[in-house]
Amino acid sequence: MEQPFIPFNKPFTAGQELVHIQQALANGKLSGNGYFTQHSQQFLKARYGLAHALLTTSGTAALEMAALLLGIQPGDEVIVPSFTFTSTANAFVLRGATIVFADSLPHHPNLDTDQVAGLITPRTRAIVPVHYAGVACDMAPLLALSRAHDQLFIVEDAAQAIESRYHEQPLGAVGHLAAFSFHETKNIICGEGGMLVINDPEFAARAEIIWEKGTNRAAFFRGEVARYQWVDVGSSFLPSELTAAYLWGQLQQLGAIQERRTTQWQRYYEALQPLARQGCFALPFVPDYARHNAHIFYLLCTSLEERDALIRHLGQHRILAVSHYQPLHASPFYRARHDGRPLPHATAHAERLIRLPLYYELNLTDQQQVIAAVQRFYL
Amino acid sequence: MEQPFIPFNKPFTAGQELVHIQQALANGKLSGNGYFTQHSQQFLKARYGLAHALLTTSGTAALEMAALLLGIQPGDEVIVPSFTFTSTANAFVLRGATIVFADSLPHHPNLDTDQVAGLITPRTRAIVPVHYAGVACDMAPLLALSRAHDQLFIVEDAAQAIESRYHEQPLGAVGHLAAFSFHETKNIICGEGGMLVINDPEFAARAEIIWEKGTNRAAFFRGEVARYQWVDVGSSFLPSELTAAYLWGQLQQLGAIQERRTTQWQRYYEALQPLARQGCFALPFVPDYARHNAHIFYLLCTSLEERDALIRHLGQHRILAVSHYQPLHASPFYRARHDGRPLPHATAHAERLIRLPLYYELNLTDQQQVIAAVQRFYL
Ligand SMILES: Cc1ncc(COP(=O)(O)O)c(/C=N/[C@@H]2[C@H](O)[C@@H](O)[C@@H](OP(=O)(O)OP(=O)(O)OC[C@H]3O[C@@H](n4cc(C)c(=O)[nH]c4=O)C[C@@H]3O)O[C@@H]2C)c1O
Ligand SMILES: Cc1ncc(COP(=O)(O)O)c(/C=N/[C@@H]2[C@H](O)[C@@H](O)[C@@H](OP(=O)(O)OP(=O)(O)OC[C@H]3O[C@@H](n4cc(C)c(=O)[nH]c4=O)C[C@@H]3O)O[C@@H]2C)c1O
Repeated sequence: MEQPFIPFNKPFTAGQELVHIQQALANGKLSGNGYFTQHSQQFLKARYGLAHALLTTSGTAALEMAALLLGIQPGDEVIVPSFTFTSTANAFVLRGATIVFADSLPHHPNLDTDQVAGLITPRTRAIVPVHYAGVACDMAPLLALSRAHDQLFIVEDAAQAIESRYHEQPLGAVGHLAAFSFHETKNIICGEGGMLVINDPEFAARAEIIWEKGTNRAAFFRGEVARYQWVDVGSSFLPSELTAAYLWGQLQQLGAIQERRTTQWQRYYEALQPLARQGCFALPFVPDYARHNAHIFYLLCTSLEERDALIRHLGQHRILAVSHYQPLHASPFYRARHDGRPLPHATAHAERLIRLPLYYELNLTDQQQVIAAVQRFYL
Repeated sequence: MEQPFIPFNKPFTAGQELVHIQQALANGKLSGNGYFTQHSQQFLKARYGLAHALLTTSGTAALEMAALLLGIQPGDEVIVPSFTFTSTANAFVLRGATIVFADSLPHHPNLDTDQVAGLITPRTRAIVPVHYAGVACDMAPLLALSRAHDQLFIVEDAAQAIESRYHEQPLGAVGHLAAFSFHETKNIICGEGGMLVINDPEFAARAEIIWEKGTNRAAFFRGEVARYQWVDVGSSFLPSELTAAYLWGQLQQLGAIQERRTTQWQRYYEALQPLARQGCFALPFVPDYARHNAHIFYLLCTSLEERDALIRHLGQHRILAVSHYQPLHASPFYRARHDGRPLPHATAHAERLIRLPLYYELNLTDQQQVIAAVQRFYL
């Protein structure tokens, strides 16, 4: 009998998502900023102690709002890790910024904070730490750099980092601004979606206006103004209530979702530790200051060839395991603009990292198949 | 017995929307560019004879994609009617453009095409006709201007114009690019959503990349490249399959939705004609070259005071009727940037226009209540 196909990821419902969608219809509100939007925002603000939070159409959109709020302009520099998704950089490129790429740590995809000080110039306006796999970047040195320089802001790319912590602090609550994603590949999903967190109160009032197409429409619907008007630049960053209703169904099950992912992650970790001890690959490294959210289970292979061979081997066993980011400093779009510094650790992570299937509905049998197939490769 | 409240608009399901959402889940695909996205795009391309079309997170996002595709830069000028939604202008302001506002026609909110020639300078890169209420702007003179000038493009703001025509041509198929909206206030809805139409093939390949966060991800998922990379600037313009599934349910009922709206529109028109003949207000004007889509039923009152009195009167009868756009040239955001030309017809439409309730589930009894309440106001 042929083994069933095990996908890398699988979108899911965890509870009342579809019931809430029907409720949104019954509420007579499918466009943005209705009950489910506000309810989800409230929940997340309370849970993580966030001052302000606005749902967005994507994590990308949240990063773009951050760039608009910071008033990024042509000539401004923004420090971004090379090993990340395009959106982390694109959001600032859209405002005319020059991206200064930082390397990863040798033993972890996250950016090497020790290197960042050397990349700062008088034109640096933002540093964007990406908490890869929900593992916190070392935030203290970045916050110190921000304090030491005028108008230098920290924007957390917390796309993958819901429920993660830096020491005791929830990720997304540490920087001046932070972006979350609810893309179907994330722990908590709504298809496409995200959230901007505004921790620096200086940006709160303007954020709501930029979110609502540059109008004071949110104030209008609260009854604060008689009609709404064009008061600033903006876009339509707010997701529909359809999307927010789905998201709320997921947030209600946040505990259950996290519990299951954590069990799965831990199972991989323990089962594959013997091979890691033999030097076949490295397991995910989690620093003492980080509490992670079981977002990604990855291995770091010893070479590109071995990683690709492992992907092929798993494919033959009908298991989809995947690489991750292509380093942005070497991308067709940016390599001619990059200052030429080699970023060997970003490149190494692009070449050697493999992500194993991890999703809410991954059952024990299937996960054991994945583990057995990895073990067989190294026999 | 108190009269039931009649809203101005009410989001609705017309058929299989929720079934399709469950199907998207069963397909294992909730993020963008899956079956329902492609299916909806195909349907609309075939129906209107469009070369290329991409669903977007909103009509606003479609306009922003257009601005990116045209390579709008600081110093470029874009001609936009003043009587429109902020997004028509914002999309270009985000790229640094200077907005040159055009006035409306005296007898219709659409821009006065005769005036446009006088607004063109060597820096004009785009004209953005808005088909208000789904009534076509006069496109021939605009297309002639585009041909007469180098690198001057027509971007139709067809946010309200699905199923409408200019002569025999569907709106959205006329300009180089066009933006549709599926916001809950539109004929065909999905909460928040839109579509960019690319009629000029020059823009097609790049559009797909900008849509997918500046990557060749769409080509990757078609199996054309081995991995996807950062190849251009971009954003996450694509809506989730959740959204596209809902949209597809609506598109399947496009005929039934249009039939019902057309009947409702016509009923208002006929019932209120006697009062219009007496000079109480003007009914919507539809030029010979336009076939409209029953998107908005509006009256043009004789003054701001009378319009506001009518809104209050209807409110007392538990009927929500609403004004529409605040003229953008006089907005808090743009009035200091505007060149000072008075735009009296845009202002008049902002002051005198009132929209009556019109939505799929508006029943005959309720509509007759609205008509009777309007008639009573003028007794
Ligand atoms: C040509 C054009 N181009 C592009 C796009 C972008 O598309 P996307 O949305 O997909 O990105 C649009 C979309 N516009 C729609 C609606 O057409 C528009 O009416 C408004 O709808 P609302 O939900 O606000 O409701 P409403 O019932 O129109 O008004 C509710 C109250 O608000 C008062 N009001 C209203 C206005 C407008 C204003 O300036 N000031 C103001 O005080 C009037 C009422 O009492 O906004 C929408 C996004 C467009 O029309
Ligand atoms: C830090 C960070 N910041 C911001 C955001 C923005 O958030 P929003 O999405 O909400 O706007 C994100 C979001 N990223 C997610 C995923 O994390 C990301 O992995 C990817 O997911 P995919 O659907 O593409 O699937 P996949 O399973 O990751 O890969 C599928 C195949 O594609 C191959 N691949 C992959 C990559 C990445 C690449 O460069 N090149 C490439 O050839 C590997 C496989 O075979 O894209 C998403 C949008 C982010 O991570």
